[in-house]
Amino acid sequence: MRGRMSKHDEGGADEPAPDFVDGETLVNFGVGKVIDSTHPEFKAGDLVWGMSGWEEYTLVSQSESLFKINHTELPLSYYTGVLGLTGLTAYAAFMDVGRPKRGDFVFVSSASGAVGHVAGQLAKIAGCYVVGSDGSDENFDLLKTKFGFDDAFNYKSETDLAAALKRCLPDGIDIYIDNVGGATLDAARLNMRRGGRVVVCGMISQYNLEEPYGLRNMYCIIPKAFRVEGFNVTGYFHMYSRFEEEMAGYIKEGKVVVVQDVVEGIGGSNRDVFREKCWEKVGGACKGVS
Amino acid sequence: MRGRMSKHDEGGADEPAPDFVDGETLVNFGVGKVIDSTHPEFKAGDLVWGMSGWEEYTLVSQSESLFKINHTELPLSYYTGVLGLTGLTAYAAFMDVGRPKRGDFVFVSSASGAVGHVAGQLAKIAGCYVVGSDGSDENFDLLKTKFGFDDAFNYKSETDLAAALKRCLPDGIDIYIDNVGGATLDAARLNMRRGGRVVVCGMISQYNLEEPYGLRNMYCIIPKAFRVEGFNVTGYFHMYSRFEEEMAGYIKEGKVVVVQDVVEGIGGSNRDVFREKCWEKVGGACKGVS
Repeated sequence: MRGRMSKHDEGGADEPAPDFVDGETLVNFGVGKVIDSTHPEFKAGDLVWGMSGWEEYTLVSQSESLFKINHTELPLSYYTGVLGLTGLTAYAAFMDVGRPKRGDFVFVSSASGAVGHVAGQLAKIAGCYVVGSDGSDENFDLLKTKFGFDDAFNYKSETDLAAALKRCLPDGIDIYIDNVGGATLDAARLNMRRGGRVVVCGMISQYNLEEPYGLRNMYCIIPKAFRVEGFNVTGYFHMYSRFEEEMAGYIKEGKVVVVQDVVEGIGGSNRDVFREKCWEKVGGACKGVS
Repeated sequence: MRGRMSKHDEGGADEPAPDFVDGETLVNFGVGKVIDSTHPEFKAGDLVWGMSGWEEYTLVSQSESLFKINHTELPLSYYTGVLGLTGLTAYAAFMDVGRPKRGDFVFVSSASGAVGHVAGQLAKIAGCYVVGSDGSDENFDLLKTKFGFDDAFNYKSETDLAAALKRCLPDGIDIYIDNVGGATLDAARLNMRRGGRVVVCGMISQYNLEEPYGLRNMYCIIPKAFRVEGFNVTGYFHMYSRFEEEMAGYIKEGKVVVVQDVVEGIGGSNRDVFREKCWEKVGGACKGVS
């Protein structure tokens, strides 16, 4: 959702989805109930999540990014987060690109965020030592008390991010799940271990800048032979079924703790109203999966 | 060799080898003849290449980076380049990290350099479309006329590197063999294709700067989901035997053209004298492989 609310250059080939246009129906990920369908995999009454108009009734003509909800015993709102796009992002980014091994040292930025808090908990399940960074004291507390991170720091309280990482992960980082980019990415690079993996899922620190942060600590990628890989969840939809089963299991076993901030109502499709109200909101019914 | 001639910070853990010390014997890769050996794989009379002192007679006590020369019918100097460390770098970086497919679009910077001219020719053998950049008109001509690159540009004549890449590779880059870093790396990122691979083998543009270039085009790594991986040849010595056979074959078949700039004499071990004279020179005999 976030990516579509920024103005992008004409060279939009970099963008997986076009910018929103004021006044048009918002089209993005949502949860709904099928009212009618000609698609063999979906029938009336099925609950689904995926790409749809954010409206009471919507017509879905492309079914590639629509998924049946199999765990209706869990809150439907989970399918907008931990069992939906951000959960799949955390899972595929960490498991497929991060390639964790038991005992790996993992760092997650924006660690209480939609992707971060799931990635961190998956890292604990995988037997890793996990450190998170966040920008508020409230969220920072959650990391250790609720999500089971081994250590955490509030990046706003640190004068030297590279030193903070060195303090929390003195032996270096095997996997960095990057949700912020910028200075944190630069600091993490200095602390990577040989053969480490940086999975770039987001760059929240960079989206609203006139001039992006200039990354200076690139050289160390050569002697340390680590890998930096951009992650785009659209390449991982084939993995959804396996992910849903595994993640639903973790949630039921209490191995993954879910915290959601649900906002009621959107208030129209105006970009600024939406931006103010929420990043994540789901609703409506899904009509006609063709 | 290059990396050891710069002054590095104390945090030298990033560096695979320590800085040279003025007045001490240079120890680096070279070619020699075994005079005596207690090692089962090397016997008197064998020609070898690998880590040794750059002196008439040297004692090699660590044999992990010493390799027997099997193709003595080829010029021995090839084992300081195309059949030695830089050739292995080009081969492993391109084949193992780059993972080429027939028809891939490949860009090589510093393309007439020790790594670049081999990487480009390997890319042609792999059935790729190959574009190189270089900084002199003389070298630039060599790329197309001698090394068989499909296209090339002199980066010093270009005002916009990203536009030059777009002109030469309008469909984008699948594999970028980066030997220079800095502005070229930034421009290449803008032109990467989804799922592309950037193999960072060197950063010659950055080594002597007080303040490194700040890379700004990082965001596109997310929507394009490409990979940037640092390459350090020390992790690929196990591949040498296969490489030597394959590369010697290419050279004999004329599929890889070799150009070497041989400088006679070193003029002592003084860092500045050496820096002025050459980047690559090998000599001496290798005594005592224990």
